Formats: sequence, C-alpha cells, structure tokens
Amino acid sequence: MGLVQTKDQPLFIGVDGGGSKCRATIYCADGTVLGTGVAGRANPLHGLAQTFESIQASTRLALLDAGMNESDSYLLVAGLGLAGVNVPRLYRDVTNWQHPFAAMYVTTDLHTACIGAHGGANGAVIITGTGSCGYAHVGDTSLSIGGYGFALGDKGSGAWLGLKAAEHVLLALDGFAVPTRLTDMLLNEFGVTDALGIVENLAGKSSSCYAALARSVLDCANEGDAVATAIVQEGADYISDMARKLFSLNPVRFSMIGGLAEPLQAWLGADVVAKISETLAPELGAMYFAQQEFNKSLSVRIGTEAKSCI
Amino acid sequence: MGLVQTKDQPLFIGVDGGGSKCRATIYCADGTVLGTGVAGRANPLHGLAQTFESIQASTRLALLDAGMNESDSYLLVAGLGLAGVNVPRLYRDVTNWQHPFAAMYVTTDLHTACIGAHGGANGAVIITGTGSCGYAHVGDTSLSIGGYGFALGDKGSGAWLGLKAAEHVLLALDGFAVPTRLTDMLLNEFGVTDALGIVENLAGKSSSCYAALARSVLDCANEGDAVATAIVQEGADYISDMARKLFSLNPVRFSMIGGLAEPLQAWLGADVVAKISETLAPELGAMYFAQQEFNKSLSVRIGTEAKSCI
Repeated sequence: MGLVQTKDQPLFIGVDGGGSKCRATIYCADGTVLGTGVAGRANPLHGLAQTFESIQASTRLALLDAGMNESDSYLLVAGLGLAGVNVPRLYRDVTNWQHPFAAMYVTTDLHTACIGAHGGANGAVIITGTGSCGYAHVGDTSLSIGGYGFALGDKGSGAWLGLKAAEHVLLALDGFAVPTRLTDMLLNEFGVTDALGIVENLAGKSSSCYAALARSVLDCANEGDAVATAIVQEGADYISDMARKLFSLNPVRFSMIGGLAEPLQAWLGADVVAKISETLAPELGAMYFAQQEFNKSLSVRIGTEAKSCI
Repeated sequence: MGLVQTKDQPLFIGVDGGGSKCRATIYCADGTVLGTGVAGRANPLHGLAQTFESIQASTRLALLDAGMNESDSYLLVAGLGLAGVNVPRLYRDVTNWQHPFAAMYVTTDLHTACIGAHGGANGAVIITGTGSCGYAHVGDTSLSIGGYGFALGDKGSGAWLGLKAAEHVLLALDGFAVPTRLTDMLLNEFGVTDALGIVENLAGKSSSCYAALARSVLDCANEGDAVATAIVQEGADYISDMARKLFSLNPVRFSMIGGLAEPLQAWLGADVVAKISETLAPELGAMYFAQQEFNKSLSVRIGTEAKSCI
C-alpha cells in the first residue's frame, strides 16, 4: 500500500450515505483509491443510530480493503454527503456525533453530488433517480430546490412517476377513469388481475418499489399512452422549471444525475437540454468536499499519526 | 354481572382493528355491553404479529372490564372488523390464526362499519376520516370502492387533503406556484418559517399526521383560498362520484361516517347529500356481524361453557 506518516498529506475518506446503502472510499490526497466499503442505509431522516452504524461499518470495510487496521479511522479526514442533513436538526445531530475520524465535514448528498459532477468545481445539478432535487453552488451562494422526499415531494422522480401511475390505474380500475395501456402494464408488472393485487404489491412499500415502475411508465408514454404521457410530461415540466431556477444563479456548469436523467431528456425543454454538461466524477464528490474543507480549516489538527500515500 | 352458562346465548365480542388502535367490546346477545378494552394498532397491512397481539390485549382488557378472567376468551364468539383484510393474502393470514375464541368471523372494517351504520341491516356507507372508502352490501352483492391507503389512494380523505396541501405549499415555497393563505396556514401549523420546517414535521410521518391538517385545509377553503378550494373540491367530487357508484346498487340506506363526513357535506353534490341517512350504531357493527355469522353457522360448537347475561 505504501503508506507513510506525514502531517501535510492526510488520507481522506468520502462517505455517501443514502436511503439504501452507505459507501465509504479511502483516498490519497491525489485521488488514488485505497479501499472501499459498502454497508446498509445511512439516511439520518430514517434513523440516526443506523446512520452512524452504517458509516462505521462501511469505514471499517474500506480500511480493511485498504490493508489498514479497522481501528485506523482516526487517521482519516472524512467528508460525509448525507441525505436529510438539509434539515437543521439532523445536521446538528450528525455534527454533534462523537465520530471516529481525525476530522469530519458534513454536507448534503446533493452538495457532494454537485461537487463531484463538476470535478471538484462549483455548478448546478439536478438529480432524478428514485427521488428528485436540484442544487446549485455559485460563489458563496447555494440554492436547493425540492428533494422533500416520497410522497411529499420529489415530483418528476422515479418514485413519483410510479406513484402517479399507480394512483391513476387504481382510479381507472374502480371506474373513475378510462383504463389505458398503463392499466394493463401495471397489472402485468405484478402479475395480478385487479386493484387489490396492485395494492398488495405497493401498500406500505418504500419509494424504490414505486421507482421500479418508472421505466414502464416511460415506455407507455413513449408508445403514446395518454395517461402515461400526461404524467411524464407533468414531471418533466417540473424538472425543466427546476433547471431554469438553478440557471438564474448563472452556474458555470450544469449536469443531470440519476437513473432518470437520460430517459427524461426527451421530455425536457430544449433550453434545458442545451445546457446539460457531462457528469465528471460523481463518486469523488465527498472526497473533494473533505479536501476542500480540510484545506480551509487551519484549526483542524491531524496529529503526527496521519498517513498518506507516497 | 349476572352470567350463567347456556348453550344458546353465547357472549359476543366485537373487535374493531385499525391503524391507530384496536377496540374490543364484549356483549350479551341483546347488545348489552359487558366490558371494553383498547390496545394498540391492529392493521394486518402493517404487521400480522402486532395485529394478533393487539386483538389479544384488547380482549384481555375487555374480559377484565367485564369481571371475567382474562383466560376466558374461549367463551366468546368474535366478530373482527379489520382494515386490510380485503387483501386476499391478509384475509387468509387472519383466518388461519390459531385464535383464542369459541369462534371467529373476520371481515373488513368497512363491512362492520356498514352493518353498524344501518343498525344491523344492509346498505351503503362512505367513510371519510383519515382514509376514505366506500362500501355497499345489497342482497348477496357487495361493492367496495377505494380505500387503498395513504398515499396510494384514499382520495378525499383527511390524509389526502393534508398531503395535497403540503405538496402544494412546498411547491409554492420553492417558487413553483403562488403562495396563498394555505401557505401561511401550514407554516403556522408547525410554527416554522420555511419548507424544510414543514418537511421536518411531515417526512416519514403516518397518515394521521397528514389528516391532522385537514380541518385547517377545509377552513382555508371555506374562507375562499383558491388552492385549498381546488383541493377540497377535487376530493369532494371524488367522494360524490363514489357515492353515485354505490347508489347504482340501490341500497336501502346510505350513511357517511368519519371525522370528515360532516365538514365535507357542503362540498358534495346535492343528489348525494339528499340521500344521507343518520348513522345508527357504528360501534355495534362487529358484534352484529359476529351474531349474524354465528346464527348462520350451524357447525360452530360453543360447548357447554358459554356464558350469557340473565
């Protein structure tokens, strides 16, 4: 592994915590990956204890993967990009954590995604996967739009497309609307024949179960189904409007991230599509953030035990 | 208490299980209440083990309240009105339960509510409280509409009104719509100043938290707020259409039950309002059902230990 002690070149760990998993990656200061670990979900909105446990578990795995001891987390400068910490209470809870790192910097998964998408620089991003949200960081100004979670917000996201489709199909099966191809699609998706069969497969399920329907809803829309078309267009119009709000900050770059970024493009405004730039290094965002904050922070003392690559 | 053993007049227990609590009431055959017990939630959709535990806990409390031993449940003919058992799998799970009663008859909370609303007779009901659904039982035909749960269905319910209001207010606070009185109402409701404050109070919360907003949404609508008016009217139109579908079965009586039944009336179609009859004995529905099924079932053997009032 070639690690030597140095005060000036600490090791970094980027932690991406979300609703399904937590990924931790240890890097040298030059961005070389030393080791990666993946653990369970780490969304403070869904439980603080589990979040801390997942961060620690993924860190231990990353340390072992890097050929270090699992007790070596105190050598690492950590950048945490976590869903939910835009809620002030949760941000405080996480930053008050007696963490096991040399230093810990916390921000939203949106912010780290934005930094990563633009290769460490500022800009704007829209994420449309299971959820949806927009974020821009320009100079000292940041703007966050949406991302309020399923089923309260996240319009235009995969989960939203799935929910709207299921809502409409259930109304159609009850005779409140005319069944369309979308109705057959949803019944076939679950191999059921009536509304209760759909409910049995969706009631109380997580947003990712709804998001799993998004591709089929898009397929129906692309095949001209009127209901699916109306749903997808409403979602895409929201995403287009979100992009225009982000553009008002004049970001240098704009990227779209997430599983729906590509399939939604055909439904977005031409002015929005024209501004989409390639996503550069989304997985490096939390590490870039840790480096930037560490370099800013003169008060952080790593001690003489910090290691780095040679 | 005056209980004597008799083969012909068993005691009955009516159990109403729902998403927030489970209420069990022990009755003589003439409807006299002997004892009541309330325990935690009993919605099979949200967990079978908890459902059975809540039914047993509320039964034990009702037995003690009736001056009986808590092990005397085997003396009782039980009628269970449970949310969720319209889902075939859950109905099977509940009826396969090794229950502690002399006999157990299971149906939906909708069905028992309908029987109770019409004093033991058939008819049609719409329930609009935290959730919404319609049910009619006429002759050998029954019809169930909606009731697919939050946030998949339950249009026109308290939770739906609260969710639609919160969705719209979050969009308005992000600049996607014009803020109205409803926006201030929701911010004031939680004593917060921005969208994140609202999300912090609602994200991941149960349907009853959303339903708690319904009165304020109705107030805003009654005061002329355009957004609240559109939401309430859309919900009420759905309820009116639901009623008309139930009327197609020509039910002798029609009642509306639940916390929103009265405040929604001003927004329903005049043809629907004209048909609303008084709700007779909603709390007796599960007991009526147990009695009716017990009387039908000649194969049920209560044994010589069954007790009844004198």
